[in-house]
Amino acid sequence: MNIGFVGLGNMGLPMASNLLRASHRIAAYDVSPAAIDAAKKAGIRTVSRLEEVAEEADAIITMLPAGADVRKVYLGDGGLVATVSPRTLLIDTSTIEVEVAREVGQASVAAGIEMIDAPVSGGTGGAKAGTLTFIVGGSAAAVERAKPILQAMGKNVGPTGHGQAAKQCNNMVAATSLIAVCEAFAMAERIGLDSRKLFDVMSTSSAKCAVLLELCPAPNVVPDAPANRRFSPGFRAALMLKDLRLAQRTASAAGASTPLGALATELYALYCGAGNGGMDESGIFTMIRGEQKEGPR
Amino acid sequence: MNIGFVGLGNMGLPMASNLLRASHRIAAYDVSPAAIDAAKKAGIRTVSRLEEVAEEADAIITMLPAGADVRKVYLGDGGLVATVSPRTLLIDTSTIEVEVAREVGQASVAAGIEMIDAPVSGGTGGAKAGTLTFIVGGSAAAVERAKPILQAMGKNVGPTGHGQAAKQCNNMVAATSLIAVCEAFAMAERIGLDSRKLFDVMSTSSAKCAVLLELCPAPNVVPDAPANRRFSPGFRAALMLKDLRLAQRTASAAGASTPLGALATELYALYCGAGNGGMDESGIFTMIRGEQKEGPR
Amino acid sequence: MNIGFVGLGNMGLPMASNLLRASHRIAAYDVSPAAIDAAKKAGIRTVSRLEEVAEEADAIITMLPAGADVRKVYLGDGGLVATVSPRTLLIDTSTIEVEVAREVGQASVAAGIEMIDAPVSGGTGGAKAGTLTFIVGGSAAAVERAKPILQAMGKNVGPTGHGQAAKQCNNMVAATSLIAVCEAFAMAERIGLDSRKLFDVMSTSSAKCAVLLELCPAPNVVPDAPANRRFSPGFRAALMLKDLRLAQRTASAAGASTPLGALATELYALYCGAGNGGMDESGIFTMIRGEQKEGPR
Amino acid sequence: MNIGFVGLGNMGLPMASNLLRASHRIAAYDVSPAAIDAAKKAGIRTVSRLEEVAEEADAIITMLPAGADVRKVYLGDGGLVATVSPRTLLIDTSTIEVEVAREVGQASVAAGIEMIDAPVSGGTGGAKAGTLTFIVGGSAAAVERAKPILQAMGKNVGPTGHGQAAKQCNNMVAATSLIAVCEAFAMAERIGLDSRKLFDVMSTSSAKCAVLLELCPAPNVVPDAPANRRFSPGFRAALMLKDLRLAQRTASAAGASTPLGALATELYALYCGAGNGGMDESGIFTMIRGEQKEGPR
Repeated sequence: MNIGFVGLGNMGLPMASNLLRASHRIAAYDVSPAAIDAAKKAGIRTVSRLEEVAEEADAIITMLPAGADVRKVYLGDGGLVATVSPRTLLIDTSTIEVEVAREVGQASVAAGIEMIDAPVSGGTGGAKAGTLTFIVGGSAAAVERAKPILQAMGKNVGPTGHGQAAKQCNNMVAATSLIAVCEAFAMAERIGLDSRKLFDVMSTSSAKCAVLLELCPAPNVVPDAPANRRFSPGFRAALMLKDLRLAQRTASAAGASTPLGALATELYALYCGAGNGGMDESGIFTMIRGEQKEGPR
Repeated sequence: MNIGFVGLGNMGLPMASNLLRASHRIAAYDVSPAAIDAAKKAGIRTVSRLEEVAEEADAIITMLPAGADVRKVYLGDGGLVATVSPRTLLIDTSTIEVEVAREVGQASVAAGIEMIDAPVSGGTGGAKAGTLTFIVGGSAAAVERAKPILQAMGKNVGPTGHGQAAKQCNNMVAATSLIAVCEAFAMAERIGLDSRKLFDVMSTSSAKCAVLLELCPAPNVVPDAPANRRFSPGFRAALMLKDLRLAQRTASAAGASTPLGALATELYALYCGAGNGGMDESGIFTMIRGEQKEGPR
Repeated sequence: MNIGFVGLGNMGLPMASNLLRASHRIAAYDVSPAAIDAAKKAGIRTVSRLEEVAEEADAIITMLPAGADVRKVYLGDGGLVATVSPRTLLIDTSTIEVEVAREVGQASVAAGIEMIDAPVSGGTGGAKAGTLTFIVGGSAAAVERAKPILQAMGKNVGPTGHGQAAKQCNNMVAATSLIAVCEAFAMAERIGLDSRKLFDVMSTSSAKCAVLLELCPAPNVVPDAPANRRFSPGFRAALMLKDLRLAQRTASAAGASTPLGALATELYALYCGAGNGGMDESGIFTMIRGEQKEGPR
Repeated sequence: MNIGFVGLGNMGLPMASNLLRASHRIAAYDVSPAAIDAAKKAGIRTVSRLEEVAEEADAIITMLPAGADVRKVYLGDGGLVATVSPRTLLIDTSTIEVEVAREVGQASVAAGIEMIDAPVSGGTGGAKAGTLTFIVGGSAAAVERAKPILQAMGKNVGPTGHGQAAKQCNNMVAATSLIAVCEAFAMAERIGLDSRKLFDVMSTSSAKCAVLLELCPAPNVVPDAPANRRFSPGFRAALMLKDLRLAQRTASAAGASTPLGALATELYALYCGAGNGGMDESGIFTMIRGEQKEGPR
């Protein structure tokens, strides 16, 4: 298929590469010349204006940093909604505000264009390996059309629903569980309870959870965990903070109460505010356990 | 084997029944005449003084409500440490303070008696079904001796370690994850995101956790969840609060920081303080989503 | 002076009455016919269209429920920015998002009109008594022009600054202190420490704060506290929640970390979500101390 | 009067010096030879054994670091309760667990000796200046006897009550308010709201509180605030953490829910755990605002 791709950053470039590998024809665009260069080096055909992405495209995928970027690419001057043919399927894989997703989706529908929002779970590792999970929102028909394309980039195309909201709920729970796991391992360390033994108990009891099994913050307990490589990412803490803030905004607008979600957000804000936004999300373990810095006694 | 059993409450009685079913000979004791009567009705041989439990026992199991009870039964006048033969194995399955577990364990060792602490996970349901998980602490030799006995009451005998501390860490993470799951489902409800779809996303993404799979707080999403029966327990919220408070005490004594664990504790304190201690732990969902009570506008 | 007044609700109507009492000439408007009627009964001259408010006005005061209302009244069709003369001073006393305040302020400046934002502290009681505090943002010159007008409605015209942001910071600290005070009095009650004695200690030590002195949540310790009248307001919990959510939004947009502010917000969300939004802000004491509701044991 | 004094640390030594200055006769003791030396240099008469403190004493004051020390000095071998004459008044000014205070008080009463607990507020600055506040618990008669002695060391002798519990409640509120104030000033900084202007608003509105007026965390807003000297103490964060943990323990034992108090405790645990226990309590501002440390982007 002819696929347009907008947004060639850490996530977008490997996603586009996987589409190419699956024999799709790509026309890729990014506002940054450096990103365009990197895409060219990866063998991806690039175009110099957003409008060219739309030409003859069966589908266009966007992977952008924030809601404002999505609004601009879809609704701005020369944006997708104004330029694409009604037979083109629009797929936004960015993680953004529920309101913006809704606004862009409604504008597309009004213009007679099918669109789905499909934020991803899995990070840059999943993007490279082609094992992302897509949390899809949109009409059943549109999702059906999108499936063969998304499967070139991921292992799971989740059920239809409110894609953004479901992803935000998911990440709120994941972040909260992850910090709780960090608290447990930090506490265990102080009382001399062996990390591996705690892992063995928790991974077979009611505390069992995906973040424990994949991101155990004590080093060398779980293979390939970021803790084993001094918390180099993986999924960056700054991105988790962004997702948590989106979730808090959604909760606040809906009048929902999320005490643990709010506190998890603030703890990531503390962690990132201390200059650690580039570490893996599980690096918050170092803050919780109190890695020493200098100071008077 | 000849097994003494002390503590015949909601947990202890079904545990003793399972031992009987596995052809052990039981001598059971409780300070409460009502509990003695209930045990008799269940066909369990009871004795009228604590000391008699010790006679000819290969092992003695205790399942008591609080650290003060454990201290009394083991170290008080006519207590187990003073009366049992050195060939008897002591097994405490109560969930209590780390300090008390340590104190009792050291007194046993000093008296030449082998002892393990083996708090359980699984609730009264697991006690009845014989599917408890034992989180065991003690010497490898003592744990080996205990295994065949414990297996009559549970499916899992966890690895040797600090039994109490590991259980506290486990429950702290489980409670925190559970409340976060409740927050996510309450928020989903308010924004019109279908509970089943949210479950499908979360159960296949980074928010996947045992409490979601077993205790999903939205009704009729997971079979047999307490949510399907208006949160009748299951594992009572008051017991979770007790475990959380033990964990906070351990953390405080160790100088550990557990912000989410502390907040989860306080939220259970709010929930139980409003008269809900007898509901299932997952009933905290009703507090989070704001079930209406009367009040001026 | 000729003063236009837009927004005749619980706050606006008594504010307009105080302006009338200070011999200003009022032209008042509200979208609600009921509010117009109430104003007429109070002897206030009303007009039937927003545009009429602007005629010959030396100043126009707005007191509206939310940012969306402010945006509409200032920037919508027939809005103030398009219709008032450049010699008119615009004064918005609503409590709204920092972004909207900035947007409306910049639009006024661009149109050559002086505008200040002046959210108030003091509630409906202060509005009636003419003892509001205005937290003013705008140019020094504009604030100087506003002073004689504001003084008819309040005792304090705060220093020039970011009015909305300063009010949000103020209310975040006040709400957090108030809940902490509630926690202290609830805890004292459980350990049998007399409320009056605790008040005497705290009001002379480092816990001394305005919310303790004015809103002590134990009944009959402080004269005129809402606790003495079963928490009838005063300042309604739902309004405090609104202000806290604005503060969290400002913090989030600024990348600030506010763990206690976030938790205070969620506790008010829990309190209001249980149907208590109409109670005084200090009524959250009943939630913290666990007033009983029915439930299984 | 003849006054025995036990505990000559940072608080005890200046307190004893003030008693000397008020023409009392002192017999002072500490387990540490260095503390004894420092007291001698300050012109205070010291004794070499605890028992000598009791000889001919009209009153004995203790100022000790922890509950275990208090228990030992009062109830241990050669302790005060066993050695003092019934006409001696015992005054414990340490900040300790409610249970220990109660245990020691009851043992004194049983031995026919009057005792009060009188924890202090005011820090080392107040100890030196003789401006401490004593939060006194005990019988009215005993407090009356203590007053003239305490007034040599402080400006306020608080009302009779549960001294320890009242102090813990007080410090829990003070710490929570202080962190909230830090959050407000950190947020103001990020949005460009001038610290002095925020102070002017908050110090005249509902956020007004003693910690704002005395410990404003933005530098050079309030004279003599620790913020003006890079947070050199003042009242050390580690001591605040100790008091907060005592309060949490009291709350937990009483079944009280203190969500903000619990979170404030954990935030101080994070701050102290990162090596900042020796900074002033208001130094937690640096953690909240995110003072940079090294880390990958």
